[in-house]
Amino acid sequence: MRISELSAQAGVPVPTIKYYLRESLLPEGERSSPTQASYGDRHVGRLRIIRALIGSGVSVAETRKVLTALDDPPASAHDLLGTAHAAVAPPAGGDVDLAAAERLVSRLGWERGKCDEAVLAGVARALEGLDRAGFTISDEVMTAYLDSVQRIARAEIEGVPTDSAEAAVRYVVLGTVLVEPLLLALRRVAEQLASAERFG
Amino acid sequence: MRISELSAQAGVPVPTIKYYLRESLLPEGERSSPTQASYGDRHVGRLRIIRALIGSGVSVAETRKVLTALDDPPASAHDLLGTAHAAVAPPAGGDVDLAAAERLVSRLGWERGKCDEAVLAGVARALEGLDRAGFTISDEVMTAYLDSVQRIARAEIEGVPTDSAEAAVRYVVLGTVLVEPLLLALRRVAEQLASAERFG
Repeated sequence: MRISELSAQAGVPVPTIKYYLRESLLPEGERSSPTQASYGDRHVGRLRIIRALIGSGVSVAETRKVLTALDDPPASAHDLLGTAHAAVAPPAGGDVDLAAAERLVSRLGWERGKCDEAVLAGVARALEGLDRAGFTISDEVMTAYLDSVQRIARAEIEGVPTDSAEAAVRYVVLGTVLVEPLLLALRRVAEQLASAERFG
Repeated sequence: MRISELSAQAGVPVPTIKYYLRESLLPEGERSSPTQASYGDRHVGRLRIIRALIGSGVSVAETRKVLTALDDPPASAHDLLGTAHAAVAPPAGGDVDLAAAERLVSRLGWERGKCDEAVLAGVARALEGLDRAGFTISDEVMTAYLDSVQRIARAEIEGVPTDSAEAAVRYVVLGTVLVEPLLLALRRVAEQLASAERFG
């Protein structure tokens, strides 16, 4: 199909498609003449994913990493999450003290070497942010956080499709990135409802 | 204290403090001479909060809104969360279809009028992002999300301090913003552990 049809099918304006082509987020179409290229269904699918990622606040650079992970799935299911998380991990940004994070995640069954250091560093940075603000999380609330993320993660990993590596990578990468705004938004709704219950 | 001492106590470089002063994030010190101002403990506390927010990826504009909420607490505990969530809400950005979001949060006990439309719109936008990417969440996983955010929200709201409005606003505003990176980072650790359990 021509770029105008691609635009109509994917619901993405032509100038935006051209921008994605220049940024190499979208592969070139097949040249049908010096000034025309032809696009297929995989361009439509790819465009939908790009639009969803960028529309969810993922940067162009992160989107490129996610697409690379989708194009080039790691050899084993075991490496899947590492790849997905590395693709969307926040930039490292200096040294962090991992000790407090290690103590905390040991309550999830974590042991040394059992998860990527980048992911653990994410927990450490979040704890540092709370600490700098002088914000303390009570043990009751922290227990609710730990129990909840464990419940969520087990349900999610239980659902990883194992019929193809492509399906598994897609599930893990998109699930990691696109579900984050949903979880945060649902938490805010639940907070307002709990607040209305207690104070309303 | 002088600006150099404020810098040492809060662990924030002098040029950064001057930037926060220009941006009106930090109130002016008391003038002790035409070229000198004197700062107090409330400047130290305020600086720590600013640094924590900005260090957690909150923009200067959002930080200003959070600080306004801290300075000017709403009259009732019932309005607390609305203020906190409005301060840190993502920009509205066009129309969203609320119907699917309403159906989903009805499973949390939501009824029409029971929470801010902006918060509900956050859920709707997140669902749209998933939908655009063709990403489906199974009923088992969605149930885990809903149960978990409800468990989290109830524990959090249970812990809202009621001894002073200032303490309550601080808890709610900072808790909303600063806990988000922690929850997301903990989810990633839990996912890696669950993945190692299933595929390792």
